[in-house]
Amino acid sequence: MIKAPGQRTRARRLQEKARHDHASGQAVRDAMPLAHAGHLVDGAPVVTPTLQRRERDRVCWHGSSAGRMIRACAAAQVRLTVTRVDGLVLARSGLEHSVAHRCVMVFGVAEPVPDAARPAHPEAMRQRLVPGRWPLLRPMTAQDIKATAVLSLPVDKASGKIGAGVPSDPEADMGWPVWAGVVPLRLQMDPPQAGPGCQPGLPEPKARFGETR
Amino acid sequence: MIKAPGQRTRARRLQEKARHDHASGQAVRDAMPLAHAGHLVDGAPVVTPTLQRRERDRVCWHGSSAGRMIRACAAAQVRLTVTRVDGLVLARSGLEHSVAHRCVMVFGVAEPVPDAARPAHPEAMRQRLVPGRWPLLRPMTAQDIKATAVLSLPVDKASGKIGAGVPSDPEADMGWPVWAGVVPLRLQMDPPQAGPGCQPGLPEPKARFGETR
Repeated sequence: MIKAPGQRTRARRLQEKARHDHASGQAVRDAMPLAHAGHLVDGAPVVTPTLQRRERDRVCWHGSSAGRMIRACAAAQVRLTVTRVDGLVLARSGLEHSVAHRCVMVFGVAEPVPDAARPAHPEAMRQRLVPGRWPLLRPMTAQDIKATAVLSLPVDKASGKIGAGVPSDPEADMGWPVWAGVVPLRLQMDPPQAGPGCQPGLPEPKARFGETR
Repeated sequence: MIKAPGQRTRARRLQEKARHDHASGQAVRDAMPLAHAGHLVDGAPVVTPTLQRRERDRVCWHGSSAGRMIRACAAAQVRLTVTRVDGLVLARSGLEHSVAHRCVMVFGVAEPVPDAARPAHPEAMRQRLVPGRWPLLRPMTAQDIKATAVLSLPVDKASGKIGAGVPSDPEADMGWPVWAGVVPLRLQMDPPQAGPGCQPGLPEPKARFGETR
């Protein structure tokens, strides 16, 4: 429903590619580590940003063991939505303007990852974002591991949507004399900036945050 | 709670800047038109991506009048979360890794914008993303306007968080011999790509999608 500013007819909506297969869902999750977790607090919906990654047929995320998000999500109904924006679709009428995007939603009852499996999650999440960095870090302590809770959802209940990447004006509007097309948007990673106390001469990290196109 | 892969102690969390004032919230919303709306469907949380913009002291979004998101949000408890990712914070331990981000959440009961005020919303949303384009478009028809519902929330109930932009390793870890700092991330807008049937010679749009830094 990410549209700007109009929306489409039912027929047109059906023309958009609704992808529900696992491969497409995983491709979207790989393209965007950021997710938004929907859960309930006192009966009201709450939406919290978090990072996600796949572990076999489950999607995993984590947070402070004492934090509100983890406590609200554990053993509760959760919806994890991942949205990647690819561009602005500029049509000939306001109604047909839209955002080119890919979105996948996974839902179900979130399960806490057992204690024995928890240490593997931070390592896998780090390695996904900065391959090769984990072995260089100060090793995790028992306290570090205890402080971090990990949740997961099976990916078998999921829905997806890939919004059209080109304007879909009706025939009657095609001659309207205004530029129509797409303005591409992507996540750009800039050169690393050393922080306070960073020793000179240490190798800079090679990070990635989903696909960079 | 967007962290990777650890989380911080309570004391450390309090050091992060939690901004609850209106100016900070508006700055975050201006920096990221994409929002995620949390609402309930059959008692379970659902998270739907949508675009948002401010109209005086309210945040507005829209969708198909017949669509599920609009019907579920109207006159119901909604949480609208806007998250802007600014970089990966690479610390000396896995626990202290995080994502530099700005996040604002607005919550309350979503109100449908009255019919008389609805036409102004698509125009304002368009003008925000592509200034000057609206007058060039095929004008909205009564049917276009009828098909688009607009909702709003007052911004007086909001909470925000601005995650630290530099590693905050404890003193004991500062000597660990690994690069530490930030890898900046930003949204990059690439040159417009003309779509099918776009007449040659028409002026290309100058779009923007929040701040581009």
